[in-house]
Amino acid sequence: MERVYVFDTTLRDGEQVPGCQLNTIEKIQIAKELELLGVDVIEAGFPISSPGDFNSIVEISKAVTWPTICALTRAVEKDIEVAAESLKYAKRKRIHTGIGTSDSHIKHKFNSNREEIIERAVKAVKYARRFVDDVEFYAEDAGRTDNEYLARVVQAVVNAGATVVNIPDTTGYCFPHQYGAKIKYLIDNVDMKNSILSTHCHQDLGMATANTIAGVINGARQVEVTINGIGERAGNTSLEEVVMALKSHKDLGYDTNINTQKIYSTSRLVSTMMNMPVQPNKAIVGRNAFAHSSGIHQDGVLKNVETYEIIDPKDVGVDENSIVLTARSGRAALKSRLNLLGVEVDESELEVIYEKFLALADTKKDIKDEDILQLVGKEYVKRRIKIDYLQVTCGIGLRNVASIGLDIAGEHFEASATGNGPVDAAITAVKKIISRETTIQEFLIQAINRGSDDVGKVHMQVEHKGMLYYGFSANTDIVSASVEAFIDAVNKFVE
Amino acid sequence: MERVYVFDTTLRDGEQVPGCQLNTIEKIQIAKELELLGVDVIEAGFPISSPGDFNSIVEISKAVTWPTICALTRAVEKDIEVAAESLKYAKRKRIHTGIGTSDSHIKHKFNSNREEIIERAVKAVKYARRFVDDVEFYAEDAGRTDNEYLARVVQAVVNAGATVVNIPDTTGYCFPHQYGAKIKYLIDNVDMKNSILSTHCHQDLGMATANTIAGVINGARQVEVTINGIGERAGNTSLEEVVMALKSHKDLGYDTNINTQKIYSTSRLVSTMMNMPVQPNKAIVGRNAFAHSSGIHQDGVLKNVETYEIIDPKDVGVDENSIVLTARSGRAALKSRLNLLGVEVDESELEVIYEKFLALADTKKDIKDEDILQLVGKEYVKRRIKIDYLQVTCGIGLRNVASIGLDIAGEHFEASATGNGPVDAAITAVKKIISRETTIQEFLIQAINRGSDDVGKVHMQVEHKGMLYYGFSANTDIVSASVEAFIDAVNKFVE
Repeated sequence: MERVYVFDTTLRDGEQVPGCQLNTIEKIQIAKELELLGVDVIEAGFPISSPGDFNSIVEISKAVTWPTICALTRAVEKDIEVAAESLKYAKRKRIHTGIGTSDSHIKHKFNSNREEIIERAVKAVKYARRFVDDVEFYAEDAGRTDNEYLARVVQAVVNAGATVVNIPDTTGYCFPHQYGAKIKYLIDNVDMKNSILSTHCHQDLGMATANTIAGVINGARQVEVTINGIGERAGNTSLEEVVMALKSHKDLGYDTNINTQKIYSTSRLVSTMMNMPVQPNKAIVGRNAFAHSSGIHQDGVLKNVETYEIIDPKDVGVDENSIVLTARSGRAALKSRLNLLGVEVDESELEVIYEKFLALADTKKDIKDEDILQLVGKEYVKRRIKIDYLQVTCGIGLRNVASIGLDIAGEHFEASATGNGPVDAAITAVKKIISRETTIQEFLIQAINRGSDDVGKVHMQVEHKGMLYYGFSANTDIVSASVEAFIDAVNKFVE
Repeated sequence: MERVYVFDTTLRDGEQVPGCQLNTIEKIQIAKELELLGVDVIEAGFPISSPGDFNSIVEISKAVTWPTICALTRAVEKDIEVAAESLKYAKRKRIHTGIGTSDSHIKHKFNSNREEIIERAVKAVKYARRFVDDVEFYAEDAGRTDNEYLARVVQAVVNAGATVVNIPDTTGYCFPHQYGAKIKYLIDNVDMKNSILSTHCHQDLGMATANTIAGVINGARQVEVTINGIGERAGNTSLEEVVMALKSHKDLGYDTNINTQKIYSTSRLVSTMMNMPVQPNKAIVGRNAFAHSSGIHQDGVLKNVETYEIIDPKDVGVDENSIVLTARSGRAALKSRLNLLGVEVDESELEVIYEKFLALADTKKDIKDEDILQLVGKEYVKRRIKIDYLQVTCGIGLRNVASIGLDIAGEHFEASATGNGPVDAAITAVKKIISRETTIQEFLIQAINRGSDDVGKVHMQVEHKGMLYYGFSANTDIVSASVEAFIDAVNKFVE
């Protein structure tokens, strides 16, 4: 297998997205998660741009051991000096410098000419090599730079000591056959010595993953990516898509160092910290990525569960308990759900129930826990916790307060609490009654409406004793929906 | 220019997504929007699957004039009869029948063999031709079907009278060079007569758009797509990405009938009706697709606004007033924002302000209306409407009621209202005070947190006298955030 290096720029290119800014502590937490995920390079910031960026690189350099820490610069001496300074604690360090090479950039941005740009590029690379052994050069807007000139630039910076040369499709304009041909042209026409080419593709036309793969197939050995494809405008290339595309096409012979089972949790951490929900139909990490329900597909799955499957959810760390049970679900998922519902079955019992389950799934899109309990001959026991009433007062210029009445196995309980917002107040009140250790691991509210009186959906994952329990509700009142989703999850572990 | 036909399956393949089901009235509204958008074919449903699907096809057939209406079937006589019946009112009608052709499908799903599958395919196409002149055949799992056998299948169904042959990459497994090679093989080895090939690609590895474009470049003349790429699992191919990719690469010589300026409004209609938010960094139609903020990019834009631009937001119907003003924004966007803020400028004044604006944008990521007013020498006048207090009571087993106090130009106003949820109650109360005609066109709540006390974001677009005004707020209390976002929008048009 040929090794492809994964260069993660979630903390640099991803963090530029309006509304996604992180503080240093958050950046360190993500950097440590990226280390566990197994990325080779963490681009930690653009140090000259702000003292905050500079400081984050310093702190990430201290906190992280294995990945190379990379700092971005323009082809400017001062930038490079500041970058070197920011990397001083890094165990492995890289400076990423570069300049625009397309005619549009040369003319409009630098008011320069091709020869002068090569000189500036070479000078920057040589200057950076004074401080570090590992220097990456980016040829900005390489996607729109003609190949012959680009090859001259790449040759010049390789000769000057660049260890990696990044060929960004800055505007996201290239099609895969064009981007692949560009990489192939460079491989064929440049003496790369021990250096490698890197891809850096944008998603403006939806081509980022395909362009990156085309780059790899044609000879690039580093991919620049972000978690969830986060990035400016339409975003960057998704780490998860590229890694799983290479993994599911093993025959092509490429391998990364990524521990794929950490993909899902890393995706969720980044989504939560940057407050950027992942859309349900996002490839690999979306909520629906492994759920499907159409009649025709189910018919296929009935006969062979692998008919439609190219990636095993477990490979990317998706807990099958948290995904919708459909005809696509395997025996293991059914068994685990049965166990959650308190039903223990042996192998042969499971086989019988699974057959019934598949038959049911063929006629019913949405298989509920009630249905599964009916399959095993158990009468569905009504949820033990029911909401008798809920009253929440919130607003501006007053305290948020909630009062709730719960019916637990026929007994009535009441509690009140204040909180940091109406949902927090109401859930704090519920927690007072149920008195069990719970942590809300994920709390997703999604509503997109015309008018103000439409339905909002709430998904929640609640942790209790190391297990995750999923709750859902939909309601025109998003505060009530949130409490209902919490109780829905809690009902799955209270006995 | 070579014409590529757009086959929209939002209402069939898109509608299968759990939680996205639509009623007949909603489907008709989307179908009419698709007609205005200019799609060539509307796949309206899978009529044998349910009476609801059947009825929707009947009603869409009556409501829509220009696009061909298409109904999906298996290669089963009863399916085809029901499909023909459902299409009876369609002005242009197509039956879409087919069968699995990969070894996995043939063996596991049909317990059959290659010759028998061809027989069944031919029989289905001939039977469908008894009812309609336009018959499309799908070779399910064509992505994993070997090319030689696939060519035999395609030749057989073309000979039997299929007008279109659909080559689905059902599992989303193909890479673009593989999918493109498959289409090329078929074009080279099948006598297509007057028939055309169609692409149908899935997004499981993030390759749907790239595969579709590879299909077109290699000879396919129909693309099967959905609005926002909605669909099972990771979704289908996005109509907007394929159309804009072809449009921005005019040199390749392909053209569609899509009125691209309707793309954004169609995207929002589908998102709202299916309650599926579009992620901010979705290509073409995401909120951030045309906003960007990085220092390096701004530096480029300073010198030439087109350095980073491949698609003009206006081309896809994005109102520049509703997007974040950044260094990327052109003079027209700045002028229009100035007008919204009540400042009229002539050409030469605009030029001076624009220079100042770009200089500011280079140092400041987030340009606010206050900043713009300062640029033109106007002192920023504090918003006329301020919230004095807000009190909302909501919950389960009681009425939602809100009471609000507003300060409008120093005068105090109060109102109360009940509503269908706490947000509806509060906004109804605000409307009583401001007494202006307003319609909430889009109301998006997004929150993804750990714990229940984190910040939620609310984006709102409010229509007033035919203009859209954008409001935003973030607050730990999502009810208060919603009211703040509404007032933020209203403050942009009250005088």
